[in-house]
Amino acid sequence: MFNYKQYKRGYFMPPVECNDWVKKEYVDKAPIWCSVDLRDGNQALIEPMSLAEKLEFYKMLIKVGFKEIEIGFPAASETEYEFCRTLIENNMIPEDVTIQVLTQARPHIIKKTFEAVKGAPRAIIHVYNSTSLAQREQVFAKSKEEIKKIAIEGAKLLKELAEADGGNYLFEYSPESFTGTEPEYALEVCNAVIDQWQPTKDKKCIINLPVTVEMSLPHVYASQVEYMCKNMHNRENVIVSLHPHNDRGTGVADSELGLLAGADRIEGTLFGNGERTGNVDVITLAMNMYSHGVDPKLDLSDMPELAQTYEKLTQMTISDRHPYCGKLVFAAFSGSHQDAISKGMHYRIDHNPDLWTVPYLPINPEDVGRTYDSDVIRINSQSGKGGVAYVLERNFGMLIPKAMREDLGYAVKDVSDNAHKELAPEEVLEIFEKRYKKYTPNFKITEVHFKQEDGIQTAVTIEENGQSLTVNAAGKGRLDAVSNALAKHFNKPCNITVYEEHALKSGSGASAIAYVGIEGDDGKGYFGIGIDHDIIRASIDAVESAMNRSLDK
Amino acid sequence: MFNYKQYKRGYFMPPVECNDWVKKEYVDKAPIWCSVDLRDGNQALIEPMSLAEKLEFYKMLIKVGFKEIEIGFPAASETEYEFCRTLIENNMIPEDVTIQVLTQARPHIIKKTFEAVKGAPRAIIHVYNSTSLAQREQVFAKSKEEIKKIAIEGAKLLKELAEADGGNYLFEYSPESFTGTEPEYALEVCNAVIDQWQPTKDKKCIINLPVTVEMSLPHVYASQVEYMCKNMHNRENVIVSLHPHNDRGTGVADSELGLLAGADRIEGTLFGNGERTGNVDVITLAMNMYSHGVDPKLDLSDMPELAQTYEKLTQMTISDRHPYCGKLVFAAFSGSHQDAISKGMHYRIDHNPDLWTVPYLPINPEDVGRTYDSDVIRINSQSGKGGVAYVLERNFGMLIPKAMREDLGYAVKDVSDNAHKELAPEEVLEIFEKRYKKYTPNFKITEVHFKQEDGIQTAVTIEENGQSLTVNAAGKGRLDAVSNALAKHFNKPCNITVYEEHALKSGSGASAIAYVGIEGDDGKGYFGIGIDHDIIRASIDAVESAMNRSLDK
Repeated sequence: MFNYKQYKRGYFMPPVECNDWVKKEYVDKAPIWCSVDLRDGNQALIEPMSLAEKLEFYKMLIKVGFKEIEIGFPAASETEYEFCRTLIENNMIPEDVTIQVLTQARPHIIKKTFEAVKGAPRAIIHVYNSTSLAQREQVFAKSKEEIKKIAIEGAKLLKELAEADGGNYLFEYSPESFTGTEPEYALEVCNAVIDQWQPTKDKKCIINLPVTVEMSLPHVYASQVEYMCKNMHNRENVIVSLHPHNDRGTGVADSELGLLAGADRIEGTLFGNGERTGNVDVITLAMNMYSHGVDPKLDLSDMPELAQTYEKLTQMTISDRHPYCGKLVFAAFSGSHQDAISKGMHYRIDHNPDLWTVPYLPINPEDVGRTYDSDVIRINSQSGKGGVAYVLERNFGMLIPKAMREDLGYAVKDVSDNAHKELAPEEVLEIFEKRYKKYTPNFKITEVHFKQEDGIQTAVTIEENGQSLTVNAAGKGRLDAVSNALAKHFNKPCNITVYEEHALKSGSGASAIAYVGIEGDDGKGYFGIGIDHDIIRASIDAVESAMNRSLDK
Repeated sequence: MFNYKQYKRGYFMPPVECNDWVKKEYVDKAPIWCSVDLRDGNQALIEPMSLAEKLEFYKMLIKVGFKEIEIGFPAASETEYEFCRTLIENNMIPEDVTIQVLTQARPHIIKKTFEAVKGAPRAIIHVYNSTSLAQREQVFAKSKEEIKKIAIEGAKLLKELAEADGGNYLFEYSPESFTGTEPEYALEVCNAVIDQWQPTKDKKCIINLPVTVEMSLPHVYASQVEYMCKNMHNRENVIVSLHPHNDRGTGVADSELGLLAGADRIEGTLFGNGERTGNVDVITLAMNMYSHGVDPKLDLSDMPELAQTYEKLTQMTISDRHPYCGKLVFAAFSGSHQDAISKGMHYRIDHNPDLWTVPYLPINPEDVGRTYDSDVIRINSQSGKGGVAYVLERNFGMLIPKAMREDLGYAVKDVSDNAHKELAPEEVLEIFEKRYKKYTPNFKITEVHFKQEDGIQTAVTIEENGQSLTVNAAGKGRLDAVSNALAKHFNKPCNITVYEEHALKSGSGASAIAYVGIEGDDGKGYFGIGIDHDIIRASIDAVESAMNRSLDK
C-alpha cells in the first residue's frame, strides 16, 4: 500500500541548535580515510569474496593509499578469521597501515577477536552495540541503562584484554544505529565509553557515529555530529569518525557536512559498495576535495583500472553515471555542451591558464585516466556543429572552417537520427568525406592548365554528360581563374566566400587539405574539400565539389 | 596528471550570509515536479529515444503523476519538433498537464519554438542563456552587460510572440550555469527578466536556478538559492525552480536543501538520468518525502514496472544500490541485520504499531512493489541464525525453536561458504531437512508400541548394524518413554531439552512438524525434526534424528 501516512521522521534533533558548521564553505583538509570494503562492502555482496579475492582487494586499497583498513569481523566468519591471520602471519601489513577488526560488544566475540589480531604490528579494535530506540525496543527489549551497560562492559573488556595481551591496539566505539538514537543518549553512552578508555594525546580513541540507516536530511546529521563534538568528554584525544550509508541518496552530503561539523575521519568504500544502498563512496568524496584544490591523500589516477578490479572482485557494476568514474560522466552529446567544451579547450591552448575551468567538465578527464577521444565529445542525433568539428579536429587534425560547420553538423545529425545510433569518429569522417570530397555527380574537371599573363589565364577541361570541353578564363589567382571558368560555363555564380587550407598528417607523407565555400545564386553557401600533396590540386578539387553541390538543387 | 593544485572552487558565495534555511528540518510539502526526462535525460543517452519511445515514456510520466513535462528542445531537432506536434495534434495532453519546451535566447530559435507549440492547450516556454564567468569568457567572449542583454531580448521576444499568438503560455527563464555565476549578477539578470515579464498572481513566471555543473557543497547552493529568493523582484509571483545535476554526488542534497531555502519546484528525471552524472533523481526525492510522512504527490507504488520500462526505453541500467529501487537496497545478508529485521517484523505482528519502524528497512519494501521472500532476507556465508530461521518461517511456515537456531545457522553458513554462493530459500530448506529429518546413520526405530499403565510403557524396536531388537521402557509421556528406551539401549543420556511442534500447511492436507533437542553426555545440544500427519510419529522421528546426531561424535 503506497501510503505516506505510515511513516514519520525516525531521527531525533539535538537538544540545542548546532549549526555553526554551516558557516564553513568546503572541506579544506582530507580526513583520515578508513576503508570498510572488506567488511561492510563484502558482507553486502551476493557472493562474498574468497580469501584470494580479499587479498587482491586489500592490495588495491594499499596501492590507492588507505592507511586504515577494516578487514572484517573475524569472530563471525571462518573466512574473515583466516584472512586476518594470513595478513598477520605473512607480514602483509605495511608499516604505515593499520588493520581494523569489528566486534560486537559481547564477551566471547571480543575474546575471539583478540585471538584473531594476536601478533598484528598494530590494530584498531572496533566494538559496537546498537543504541537506537527501535533496536532497544524491538531487538533487545532493554532499557537505556542496560544498553549503556553493554557498551561500558565491552569497553572495559577491550581495555583488559589489550593490557593482558600487550599488543599495539587502538580502540573504536560505534553507537550503532546512531541516526535512530536520541543525541543526548548517544552522547551519554559515548562519554561513558571514553571515560573507560581514558584516551590521551599519544593513545587516542575513535568514536564513530554511523548513519546506519539514513533517516534525515544531511544538515540534520551535521547538527547531530556538531552536538556530539561539542559535548564529548576529552574531545581533543578523540578521533571523531563518520560512517554514512546512502538510503536517501545523500551519503556524500552527510560526510561532507559532517566533516564541516567537526569529524576527523571517514569510513567508506570504493564506488559506494556496502549494505543496501551502500556505504559512502570514498572516491567521490576524495575527488570532490581534489576538484576544490584540496589534496585528497588518495591516488585515484588510474580510475579505469580501479573500476575494473573492483567489478571483477565484487561482481558489482559501476553505474554509467557514477561521479568521476562512470562511463558517461564526461560525455557530451548535446550540441551546446560540445560547443562550449570545444571552445573551452581552445581557450586553454590560447591562454594556458593555471587552473582548470573548461565548461561542463568538473575535472580534466585525463587526470583519472580517461581520454577525450572516446569519453568526452560523442556524436549522436543530439549533437551539433561544434562537437562534430571538434571530433574531426581531435581525431584527424581537420580544422573545419566556421562557415562550413552548420552544413556539416546537420549532415551528421541526419545520419545519426535516421540510423538511431551513436557515430564513432571514423563514421563522422566518412560522412564528411562522402559529402565534400570528390563530389561530382554533375561534372568533373579532368584537366587544368595555367599561364601567368595579366594575372592568371586558365584552360579548364570539364567532363559533363559523357562529353568533354575546355573553357578558358582569367582571374587574379589560380583558384579565382578556375571558379571564373566554372561560372562562365554553367552561367551561375561561383564566388569563393570561404577558402582555408592546412597541412594534414596522415598515412605516408604530409598532404594538404583545402576547404572551399561558394555562394550559390540563391545566396546560400555550398562547400567542398580537396586533399592532395599539391595544394593547387586540393583547392581545385574543393571548388569542383562545391560547384557540383550548388548545381544539385 | 593527478594534481589537485590545478583546481580551485569555481563557484561564488552570496555577498551576505544566507543560512536561514538551516533551521528548517525537513521538506514538509512536495514541490511542483517537472520531469525533464524527455529533454535533459534524452539528450544524454547514447541512443536518444525514437518518437514511439518518447510517447511511451511520456505516458509513463503522466501515469506517475507529473503535471509538468519538458518534452524537448523542438527547435534543435526534427524528432523533438515532430514529437511536440504529435502531442498537440493528437490531443495527448491531459487537462491537468502542461508541456514545457526549451529554447535558447536566440530569435530564430525562439520563433521556431513558438511554431512548435502552436495550438497547445497550455505550455511553458523555457528560455535560457549561459551566465557563468567561464562561459562569458571562453564561449561567448561577452561582457556581463552583453550577456544580460541576451536574456532581456529573449524575454521580450517571448512576451511579444506570446501576445501575438494568443496562446496559453507560462514563461520560464534559466540563468544557465548558475552555479558558476556570481550570485549578484545572476540576481541582476533574473530581475531584469522578471521586470520584462511582470508576472502577476494569475500569471506567474518561473525562475529556474540550475546546478548545471555541481561545483560546491550542497549547503553553499542552498545559501545561493536563499539569496536569490530573498532579493528577487516580485517574489510572490515567481515560482523558483531548481534543476540540480549530480557531478559531486550531492544532487539530492542540493534539491532538498534548496527547497528548504525557498524553492517551489524541482526539475529532474526518473532514476537520475541526464547529462554526465545525471539530473537529480525525482524518485529518490519523492520517496525521501514519503518516508518522512509527507505526501510526495507522485505514485511510485509499482517501482519494478517503472524501472523495467525506463531501462527498456533508455537502455540505461539502474544500479543495484540505487535508493528505493535498486535490486539490493532492501537486501540483508548479514546475520545481525537479518536478526533485527526478523525481530522487527515480529514486533509489528505483536504490537500492530501505526508507524513503520522496522530496523534496517527505511520503508516497507512492499510499498514499492517488492517482496520479502526474494528481496529482503537473503542467505549467504555472511548470514546468521536469525535470517535462516526467518527464511524458513516466511517461505515454509516453519517456526524453528530458538535453541536450535545456532546449530542450523552454522550448518547453512558452511554450505554457502564452501559453495561460495547465495542460497535460495529452497536450498536452505534442503540443508535443514538433510540435517534434521530422518537422520539415521547409526540406528533406525522400526516399530513402537505404547501401553498406558503406571504412566506410559513402550516397546521400541531398534534396527542397528543390520540387527533388530526391542527395548522396553517407561515414561511420563509417550516421547519420554521412547527417549528413555533409547537412553537405556545406548547407555547414553537422551534428555529432551527442546520440544516444539506445530501444524504445517503444505501439499495435500495438513501435517505437523515436531522439533526435538536432546542434551548429549557432553552437555551439548543435538537436534532432530519429524514431519507427519500423526504428531506422535513426527515426535518419535525427531528424537530418532537427534539421538542419531548425538551418537555421531
